[in-house]
Amino acid sequence: MKPLIDGLQYANWSEKIFRQMRAGGVDAVHVTVTYHETFRETVAVIEAWNRWFERHPDLIFQGRTAADVQLARDTGRTAIFFGSQNPSCIEDDIGLVQVLHTLGLRFMQLTYNNQSLLACGCYEAEDSGMTRMGRAVVAEMNRVGMVIDMSHSGERSTLDAIARSSRPITISHANPHSWHAALRNKSDHLLRALGESGGFLGLSAYPHHLKGGSACTLQDWCDMAALACDLVGPRQVGIGTDLCQDQPDSIVEWMRVGRWTKEIDYGEGSATNAGFPPMCDWFHDNRDFAKIRAGLLASGMDATTVDGVMGANWHAFFDKSFGPQLAANRQHRRAAE
Amino acid sequence: MKPLIDGLQYANWSEKIFRQMRAGGVDAVHVTVTYHETFRETVAVIEAWNRWFERHPDLIFQGRTAADVQLARDTGRTAIFFGSQNPSCIEDDIGLVQVLHTLGLRFMQLTYNNQSLLACGCYEAEDSGMTRMGRAVVAEMNRVGMVIDMSHSGERSTLDAIARSSRPITISHANPHSWHAALRNKSDHLLRALGESGGFLGLSAYPHHLKGGSACTLQDWCDMAALACDLVGPRQVGIGTDLCQDQPDSIVEWMRVGRWTKEIDYGEGSATNAGFPPMCDWFHDNRDFAKIRAGLLASGMDATTVDGVMGANWHAFFDKSFGPQLAANRQHRRAAE
Repeated sequence: MKPLIDGLQYANWSEKIFRQMRAGGVDAVHVTVTYHETFRETVAVIEAWNRWFERHPDLIFQGRTAADVQLARDTGRTAIFFGSQNPSCIEDDIGLVQVLHTLGLRFMQLTYNNQSLLACGCYEAEDSGMTRMGRAVVAEMNRVGMVIDMSHSGERSTLDAIARSSRPITISHANPHSWHAALRNKSDHLLRALGESGGFLGLSAYPHHLKGGSACTLQDWCDMAALACDLVGPRQVGIGTDLCQDQPDSIVEWMRVGRWTKEIDYGEGSATNAGFPPMCDWFHDNRDFAKIRAGLLASGMDATTVDGVMGANWHAFFDKSFGPQLAANRQHRRAAE
Repeated sequence: MKPLIDGLQYANWSEKIFRQMRAGGVDAVHVTVTYHETFRETVAVIEAWNRWFERHPDLIFQGRTAADVQLARDTGRTAIFFGSQNPSCIEDDIGLVQVLHTLGLRFMQLTYNNQSLLACGCYEAEDSGMTRMGRAVVAEMNRVGMVIDMSHSGERSTLDAIARSSRPITISHANPHSWHAALRNKSDHLLRALGESGGFLGLSAYPHHLKGGSACTLQDWCDMAALACDLVGPRQVGIGTDLCQDQPDSIVEWMRVGRWTKEIDYGEGSATNAGFPPMCDWFHDNRDFAKIRAGLLASGMDATTVDGVMGANWHAFFDKSFGPQLAANRQHRRAAE
């Protein structure tokens, strides 16, 4: 059995959820620790995680390297890897990239829907690509071993990130736009460029990213997974469920609105559908990954590819992404790895 | 040859000083990174250190464990260990102890001359001992492996820290009060209690702590070192020069006044002697440790004790102090180790 890894969750964390991770055999999760929070606010969230690690050492621990995925398997626990969905946490200070990496941040999105100091979000009318600071921060993230995540970025900015990053980037939680035309989903052109660069796609199970929304069937989702493997590459696709378990709707409002506007922004929702959408009946929590695995196998995907999508691919990506940059990798790289 | 370690410096850092560390064969230095700075300001100083580490990887690197002292020796570099001279950096948030430990902070003074949220400084009229938060923070520092440093604390608070800490504490830069009656120097009673608890004394070369001030002779200082070994124990004494090389006098004002008063406070100085005192002629910078070693040997101290004082004792103290607390050590401990 290969590792089981979820490339994106943002739950209302509790012992219940940690026990469900164990019940589901989840070896590692990339968890969002911050969206619009300042550096100091982000540190307060990390402090809360330190408290959970201290209270539940039998269930979870902080993941820092790919080897921690194996440690999790060996000790029957789940390794928690930190990520940010927006660069608010580095404020306008490039030195905070290394500081947050030292504190365990392994992923950072360059944008969250809007223009940021670094790049452009997928909801802006005009995407002018990577900014001056964006280029500097990409180089710094490459240097220390923090993964560039473009899940909520615009297409031009994402292509820029692929071109400028000397290490593979990720879109940790999104699906092909050709399968479901959500603003957050990614074009075939972009996904092919991601694959050619050695990059990585985590497949979302968040209903707004799914054909049919909450009614999307497991079979449809598994067919989409096969399409994604064709577009990006079967060794470069994993899962990024975007599970927001047990969160009140005030949280989806925080995610969308932060402190950047006094108006309500419904993001992927609408005035009549403002809250978190109901999850599909085949994925409610960490105990349901076995259903996804079974669905992928039933859909005809070969067992090796299924193992890869369920976690082995993320594991290999973690292995080449979280350490300091080696001199040999410093050259600009476009070819697939 | 045993390691050469300085237990306290706060210089105006530069490549010149790092090269002097190498010229002097200094394997490790505990450097002050923060006094009255907030957490965010402290992080900005750590960022500046990260820049130095990146620019001068052939000269210095960040020390995190005692093994890094050996790594420094093996690679011909100096390991830099971070410390704070005041708890301003943790604000009123105990969670910042672990966060700062993760960022490399290995020492924290509970006070700097004044009352703090944790304990009482050596310049207050009344020392009411450890506060409620102080007791909680001492336990947290014990847990994560951050050394309690009482160099600038009052006697009662220091005795409290010795009694309450489950791991040995330090006074990283001070001398016996019975040798020179400075407010910052420590009573024989206190130094004996420190020694009995397994604690550690770093001997200061800062002229305000020396008999005769800047005119103190090396012979006098070495006699004082022998006295300190008698009081604390020959395996529990090292050097903590308090070298403030190349600092402008505005820095000693910041150290003394911070933002806590609008008046000038002269601390150990006076209106007519407000700046940094001139260093003794036998210790100006990191190239002068050989003079101290020679002085100790000439004073009749045996070679093993000299090796200990010059660094082997600090190295052993680092080894038992910087890691997470082992369950076996959690019991309250008063006996000498």
